[in-house]
Amino acid sequence: MSALQGNAVIGQSGGPTRVINESLVGVIKEAKRRSQIKKLYGALHGIAGILNQDFVDLTKETPRTLGQVGLTASAALGSVRKKPTADDCSAILRIFQAHDVRYFFYIGGNDSAETANIIDEQAKDSRYDFRVCHIPKTIDNDLLVTDHCPGYGSAARFVALAHMGDDLDNRALPGVKINVIMGRHAGFLTAAAGLGRTGRGDGPHLIYVPEVPFTLEGFCTDVDACLKKWGRCVVAVSEGIQDKRQRPILKTGAKDSHGNVELSGSGALGDFLSGVVKTKLGVQRVRADTFGYSQRSFPTVVSEQDAREAREVGGYGVRMLVKGERSASVALRRVENSRRKDGYGCSYFLTALKNVAGGTRSLDKKFISPSGNDITAAFRKYAMPLIGELPEVGRLSGNRIRKKRV
Amino acid sequence: MSALQGNAVIGQSGGPTRVINESLVGVIKEAKRRSQIKKLYGALHGIAGILNQDFVDLTKETPRTLGQVGLTASAALGSVRKKPTADDCSAILRIFQAHDVRYFFYIGGNDSAETANIIDEQAKDSRYDFRVCHIPKTIDNDLLVTDHCPGYGSAARFVALAHMGDDLDNRALPGVKINVIMGRHAGFLTAAAGLGRTGRGDGPHLIYVPEVPFTLEGFCTDVDACLKKWGRCVVAVSEGIQDKRQRPILKTGAKDSHGNVELSGSGALGDFLSGVVKTKLGVQRVRADTFGYSQRSFPTVVSEQDAREAREVGGYGVRMLVKGERSASVALRRVENSRRKDGYGCSYFLTALKNVAGGTRSLDKKFISPSGNDITAAFRKYAMPLIGELPEVGRLSGNRIRKKRV
Repeated sequence: MSALQGNAVIGQSGGPTRVINESLVGVIKEAKRRSQIKKLYGALHGIAGILNQDFVDLTKETPRTLGQVGLTASAALGSVRKKPTADDCSAILRIFQAHDVRYFFYIGGNDSAETANIIDEQAKDSRYDFRVCHIPKTIDNDLLVTDHCPGYGSAARFVALAHMGDDLDNRALPGVKINVIMGRHAGFLTAAAGLGRTGRGDGPHLIYVPEVPFTLEGFCTDVDACLKKWGRCVVAVSEGIQDKRQRPILKTGAKDSHGNVELSGSGALGDFLSGVVKTKLGVQRVRADTFGYSQRSFPTVVSEQDAREAREVGGYGVRMLVKGERSASVALRRVENSRRKDGYGCSYFLTALKNVAGGTRSLDKKFISPSGNDITAAFRKYAMPLIGELPEVGRLSGNRIRKKRV
Repeated sequence: MSALQGNAVIGQSGGPTRVINESLVGVIKEAKRRSQIKKLYGALHGIAGILNQDFVDLTKETPRTLGQVGLTASAALGSVRKKPTADDCSAILRIFQAHDVRYFFYIGGNDSAETANIIDEQAKDSRYDFRVCHIPKTIDNDLLVTDHCPGYGSAARFVALAHMGDDLDNRALPGVKINVIMGRHAGFLTAAAGLGRTGRGDGPHLIYVPEVPFTLEGFCTDVDACLKKWGRCVVAVSEGIQDKRQRPILKTGAKDSHGNVELSGSGALGDFLSGVVKTKLGVQRVRADTFGYSQRSFPTVVSEQDAREAREVGGYGVRMLVKGERSASVALRRVENSRRKDGYGCSYFLTALKNVAGGTRSLDKKFISPSGNDITAAFRKYAMPLIGELPEVGRLSGNRIRKKRV
């Protein structure tokens, strides 16, 4: 293994998250410490910025600015959803060579890992000596190899908290409430809706993930049974629910450059399911909320653990590459930590880009209840350390006063 | 003024808020201290609970439980949207007499004040000696007489924070983003979307409130101009926007028992406006989020000032009534407080129920920009003390690196 000497580029890609800037700051701080990296360039809007040579000098940012940027939601460098063509990759390599760029850090999900992999393969072909590091990030938690993904914990915390509040709201004014959660193929984020339940009858009472084939009949039966049992029903449903032939329950038609159907930014699925409950079950009070971008960008909702890990994966990536490791993706491994009450600890390792590029992980079978409409204790154990402690819910003891004859 | 001796009933009504339980706890704690009140009954689901004699004994709740309940979102007693008929009011009075209820505290908005007023009028007619106190609560901030309403500050804080995050998200992945905010007639909550802006070009760039007639042509012109100026556009729009003849831009048709059209719990308006931008302006990336019940019930988003005032209006109402004051609604007055940097202070006073019942306040003209699509500095001055401090936004200084010939 030989360490390269030169400049480095970092870019952010895909949907922003609450903690992706921690990864950026992790890379910047570590890069500043390493003599192998002369200058660290920030590419504005990912590979689009590289193609335009829209670079900013990150080496000059002050510690105070970096501290603040780390605490700030979204992607400070700007993001992009773009799959590079072969021509794009050639252009990127020419630009890297012109700027003596020997390291490229790309923070993103599996599409970004794919982009990183394509560029890495082309670099090998052109014999330009250079290394790519994919830094994992996605609220969907759907990357292969890794135990979990930076960005997920904070988004999951938002979803868990929102459902705690929403369930209390629904207790006060009963009816059917449907919440549509982000997550194209994987149900990890939707599953988090159930993490805030503490008492008997707490909602969400039904949780539908893309991993379980969804039928409108089954949905209506479930909601009806819940109404009979609890007099109300809170439903958490993934935007990516699909039938047994893997067709989305509702399509918007539009696709992004990676060929993914656009699911977010529309209330259509929630309104559709809401209409079904009204018509088929004759329920009067039915509401649907589509949890939007707040899931990934709400300023004060952040999991401390998630933020810490997001920072650390960035630093780890830099350390490994300047040590001479080959191009790779950083992954997280869950380890035993006896100093914590929940025993949770996390360490990092590298995995080949091709192991992460393109593919996605689904919610493990053991995390889904046999009924297919709820989560398991195993999921709770998996996810709780990632989202952090939830607030206590106050409940009146409710000593009844005897009725009188009037 | 003579003080009555007997039991008291408290109920919560209308849409829950993040801090309405503070008002409940404020009433319970003060009632426990007052010898004029023997027992305090909690009516489950407001007047519906009274009619069913669904009462719980709140005198028995422990201080620890009360502390926790105060910190918890939504309405711990359950809520209701019900306008009592003349028959209902007679029944309520008979039930109150049977239980020796001499005080009735009703926490809610203007519909609840109306309900309180109807019951009070009937009590006078039947010569049953008894007092009603309406405790103000609404995220809409649309009650008459009062400077502002408990519940508003926390909801406004949610809306301001959500837009800070959403604007950063939109900076990272530019396009048109439309956020639909709660608020049937008044634009106070929507106006709060602009409170988190700190830098040049920060969104929301356009804010549409129900007080300004909305036209699709004007909307398209505004969005187009914004796109030309900033290359992106974040829009905050009230669910209650209407045309110059005061017809909603989009109707769902359903009405509640107070005759109000149901606007929330559907993504229809956002999706409609999103479609207009796509079709009329040919913009590719257009998303709409409808901010749902999280606005009023998100566990960790609370304005400390709002929570304190919500607690205090409850206690104040009890003190005034046991002192012998007539039936009334509690109102808030803004006063000078030299101990605070922003000079903000708040005191309480009583106003006749009929002054608050039924009517609503709109966003003051001085709070709306002459362009009709933004807020003013006067609104910021009015609202900032109510929502509390917002987090700082970290921004990279962005020193450009010179492009090279490739």
